[in-house]
Amino acid sequence: MRALDRRAGIRHVASAANPLLKVFRHALAEGTTRDGWLAVEGPFLVEEALKARGRAVVESVLVAESAAGKFQGLLERVAAGTEVAKVSERLFRQVAHTEAPQGIAALVELRADSLEEVLSASSAALLVACGLQDPGNLGAMLRSAQALGATALVTLKGTVSPFNPKATRASAGAVFHLPIVCGLKPAVLFPRLRKAAVRIVAADRHSPSSLADADLRGPVAILIGQEAAGLPPGLACEADLLLSIPIRSGTDSLNAAAAASIFLYEIARQRGFRY
Amino acid sequence: MRALDRRAGIRHVASAANPLLKVFRHALAEGTTRDGWLAVEGPFLVEEALKARGRAVVESVLVAESAAGKFQGLLERVAAGTEVAKVSERLFRQVAHTEAPQGIAALVELRADSLEEVLSASSAALLVACGLQDPGNLGAMLRSAQALGATALVTLKGTVSPFNPKATRASAGAVFHLPIVCGLKPAVLFPRLRKAAVRIVAADRHSPSSLADADLRGPVAILIGQEAAGLPPGLACEADLLLSIPIRSGTDSLNAAAAASIFLYEIARQRGFRY
Repeated sequence: MRALDRRAGIRHVASAANPLLKVFRHALAEGTTRDGWLAVEGPFLVEEALKARGRAVVESVLVAESAAGKFQGLLERVAAGTEVAKVSERLFRQVAHTEAPQGIAALVELRADSLEEVLSASSAALLVACGLQDPGNLGAMLRSAQALGATALVTLKGTVSPFNPKATRASAGAVFHLPIVCGLKPAVLFPRLRKAAVRIVAADRHSPSSLADADLRGPVAILIGQEAAGLPPGLACEADLLLSIPIRSGTDSLNAAAAASIFLYEIARQRGFRY
Repeated sequence: MRALDRRAGIRHVASAANPLLKVFRHALAEGTTRDGWLAVEGPFLVEEALKARGRAVVESVLVAESAAGKFQGLLERVAAGTEVAKVSERLFRQVAHTEAPQGIAALVELRADSLEEVLSASSAALLVACGLQDPGNLGAMLRSAQALGATALVTLKGTVSPFNPKATRASAGAVFHLPIVCGLKPAVLFPRLRKAAVRIVAADRHSPSSLADADLRGPVAILIGQEAAGLPPGLACEADLLLSIPIRSGTDSLNAAAAASIFLYEIARQRGFRY
């Protein structure tokens, strides 16, 4: 490893009091550093961050000595300017937040996306999370949104952060690839959607209008409500269209991430899967 | 509560060594009793079990003294022959397996479903979980299967149990309503599907054939593979048809529960949502 150590500027950190370790420990527990850099664990997410050129910059990498050999290929792809710190396995375990730490973690600066940029997409398909509280659910929505051609994820104020560690893991890397605009107030979002001629469509299990019968080829924003309560009534009235997924009578509803995935599939299907 | 206590035969249990409490403690941790009765916590799941007449029998209910008033309506709907035990809140917490126990739990005998019954449905749409390991994912699939008109969930040997506590919770009660056939060997399942003229369709992210272009109106069984590895090669060759959900290039794949939900939606859409 010595040649690699010199080339990539890997430094050895031996003290738990090291400031970088403190930053990693806090960020891996919270999801982000105080400056908003995303903290991720495991080779899969580090790899996804490296792939997301133009959207994500890997600023710091922390690697356990015992795992450095295994991740040599990954470390060689880290940019020259990136800070890489190697620690003992014991120290890595103290810093990590997963149950079975895999020996590599990174701090990633994400491009900040604005609503303006997101709305300028020619055929917008925005997924708007309205109050979801389960980070795993939000992460799964983010993964589906990226895979099924949504142009962005927007979250309303009061929604769990998509940068929560559980959300990031459930997103399977989509958090690095899809534009995300977080924590908007309804009074900010809805007028701008209208101004941009984006149709506001709410997933509403009680609506008599079926998703399958609606024409969703133009620009749309899909509002998905909370897991249990669904869409708050104050938001449903902002929608141009309320659509339900036809489900078997007597059943409660679909999981929010499943509903979002089905809406996005139907939109993509109508648009001929041209992403 | 005295009138109710007499009517429903509620007995007070004060000792942690009580055999019923021991059964509940083990079953709430494992998902089932040794006899295979399903153990569930919280009023929502107890209510769903009570609703599933013909499929589920609530055999025992455990209620915390502090919560008995709140759940009086629920307790009144429990059949006369059901064993109802009331314990202190402290004892309930010792027995419960959730982080924030809600004061009510039940043991539920589920109807045992056979593959023969499941295959006799006139327009079968079976969801076959092939090796999934994440109980939350399997539970979410079960919820979607029930809501979107699947006729049964079948799991292959090596798949996590749908009666795992996390799966049961994620199913949002669907575990009581949908026929489930567990732990089948491929050598048992596939010949029977063929004999029943059920088409075997595998979700395969690498297939060039799109789900949206296939005719899925006849009887089908949809095979869904593991979260990370997808469908084992040995199973893909059993399928009559491999179909992919068209996703944005460069994206990894969909979450297994999201993929299953989309397959079931597409089948239901083609069948005119006649459940």
